[in-house]
Amino acid sequence: MTSTRPRSEPIVGRAPVDLEDSPLERENLRRRVSEALDRFLYRQDGRLASVAPEVGVLVGALRDLLCGGKRLRPAFGYWAWRGAGMPDDDRMVTAAAALELFQASAIIHDDVMDRSDTRRGLPAVHRRFGELHRAAGWRSDGEAFGTGAAILVGDLCLGWSDEMFFGSGLAADRLARARTVFDQMRTELMGGQYLDLLEQALGGGSVARSRRVIQYKSARYSVLRPLQLGVALAGAGRRLREAYDAYGLALGEAFQLRDDVLGVFGDPAETGKPAGDDLREGKRTVLVALATQRGTPVQAGVVDRLLGDPALDLAGVELLREVLVDTGALAEVERMIAAGTEQALAALDTVEVAAPAGGVLRELAAAATARRF
Amino acid sequence: MTSTRPRSEPIVGRAPVDLEDSPLERENLRRRVSEALDRFLYRQDGRLASVAPEVGVLVGALRDLLCGGKRLRPAFGYWAWRGAGMPDDDRMVTAAAALELFQASAIIHDDVMDRSDTRRGLPAVHRRFGELHRAAGWRSDGEAFGTGAAILVGDLCLGWSDEMFFGSGLAADRLARARTVFDQMRTELMGGQYLDLLEQALGGGSVARSRRVIQYKSARYSVLRPLQLGVALAGAGRRLREAYDAYGLALGEAFQLRDDVLGVFGDPAETGKPAGDDLREGKRTVLVALATQRGTPVQAGVVDRLLGDPALDLAGVELLREVLVDTGALAEVERMIAAGTEQALAALDTVEVAAPAGGVLRELAAAATARRF
Repeated sequence: MTSTRPRSEPIVGRAPVDLEDSPLERENLRRRVSEALDRFLYRQDGRLASVAPEVGVLVGALRDLLCGGKRLRPAFGYWAWRGAGMPDDDRMVTAAAALELFQASAIIHDDVMDRSDTRRGLPAVHRRFGELHRAAGWRSDGEAFGTGAAILVGDLCLGWSDEMFFGSGLAADRLARARTVFDQMRTELMGGQYLDLLEQALGGGSVARSRRVIQYKSARYSVLRPLQLGVALAGAGRRLREAYDAYGLALGEAFQLRDDVLGVFGDPAETGKPAGDDLREGKRTVLVALATQRGTPVQAGVVDRLLGDPALDLAGVELLREVLVDTGALAEVERMIAAGTEQALAALDTVEVAAPAGGVLRELAAAATARRF
Repeated sequence: MTSTRPRSEPIVGRAPVDLEDSPLERENLRRRVSEALDRFLYRQDGRLASVAPEVGVLVGALRDLLCGGKRLRPAFGYWAWRGAGMPDDDRMVTAAAALELFQASAIIHDDVMDRSDTRRGLPAVHRRFGELHRAAGWRSDGEAFGTGAAILVGDLCLGWSDEMFFGSGLAADRLARARTVFDQMRTELMGGQYLDLLEQALGGGSVARSRRVIQYKSARYSVLRPLQLGVALAGAGRRLREAYDAYGLALGEAFQLRDDVLGVFGDPAETGKPAGDDLREGKRTVLVALATQRGTPVQAGVVDRLLGDPALDLAGVELLREVLVDTGALAEVERMIAAGTEQALAALDTVEVAAPAGGVLRELAAAATARRF
């Protein structure tokens, strides 16, 4: 949002896709979200320094992680608000930015649980602190130190997401409307994470079970809940809420399916993780469930033998990829992504979304499923 | 609080220590806090069941842990409110009960970080889930499963503490006054936990450094911050706030010093942990720092050799205890506890605390430092 833009956008009926304008809008929001996070972390830095100067390192690790974020969740929250006809508002940008902290908490703890080495092209937070321990030549177990520090950074982010959202300065009645959504978002994410742990422990399940994990572990807090937060803050009516819900549910799943495809077939430069990392970690995705369901006994055997092998080399990665392609699993997931994206866009067509939000939300649907950020 | 008690207590000047009444008051509050937690968890159980029935096990583990709590933090919060002349109020009991969830989050994650086996006489949450994994014969690493599940239960508690406090139904202006304290409490606890990790990694520090860890890792969130929450919700004046602060700072440290003494010399039936467990974990307490500082080279050598040895047997525990006694460290810590408790009580004498809260707060000071619950 530039300073020359009027702070209130009129509702102009069915929103046109404004392809000229919305990339700039998206970029501006990204910048403002980053600035809001910077300001917030600066204040927390001071608070932690009042405990002890040594503690500042917790904020440093977080700042680096946050730099790599795509600001997708804040975008859904902010544009849902704008789509309800609300004016641009720095307080709304701050509330939306809190979703980056929430996500940071989820991925920091997830990386501890999955023992992932890399995130967004950098060492995972627990690895960073393990390395700090090693480099300093401290006593006792460096891995335990790294795990402990990462649990704490994740805890900080979880608390801070709440502090930033409810301390955004938006009116108390608006925030009160958003509280139920916020609370549900937190609880269902932890439930989804536990389901994911369980699926790994059970060693693979059906397509339906994998889709359930996707919903609760990622889809809902990535798209649906941010939209619902924006619209609850705005106080929009039932029709817009229902359209956003339909858009959010369909797009959230398509977004996570795309993420799963990229986790196996994506360019490491784009995913920020080494090639085949999801296969090494044994992630029980819809892609894998489809391959197991559709594969011959030989193909299913390859999945069973190689998936989750921490020492999986590139030849093994290639073999697994081949199975995912040959069984038709990849093609089926691509069909699901396309159908979900279509469904999301169609839902937007059923209501009036204030400009420029309608165009931006359409563009976000394409961006989230194509992963061209 | 019985139903025949008037809902509003008059301010009666300098509060007498009502030894007949306050044990009953304390017991009643404990019961009401437990009931509030039960109701809250019942609702969350339903929310998690909407994710998947398998997820309910997260609430079960938490319920067992919460059963063993002493409700000390809710007591400080609630009686601070009552001491400011506020009437008994179920909503305040609910807000205070949220502090049990906050503490549960802290200890569940702390046990993961310290790899503790036992808490409140039961297996630590991560051990419970490790055992669930083993008993079910699931795939992959049971310890990693236990750690992951415990991280998630701790995350749930952290979010729920906020949800329960701010969803207590107290008026929005009261809650808004308490927000800063709540936010500080969370952030400084994580800072304190990190300092503790750091002290273990550095292998022991000065008495001053150990006292700093105590303050931020335990003392403040156990006594000072609950009192400040109660008084902020009540909207009390500066004089009462200052008296509570002085009481809370002094008592919080004395309480944690008592906890450290019990961790080494306490009866396992009382501490809920095996004898000498804190020594095996290598906890860098003020007790240990004093012994190292005052001991002969031989005594310091014993500490250096045995402290933190996971295989430490009872003979080793006895030898370390002997050093803590012979160096005068134990006697010095007992002096610090007595002085802190005195200071806390003296602070209460400087202001008018509404009955029966004045008496209860005095009794809580004795109970928290003697650990006779």
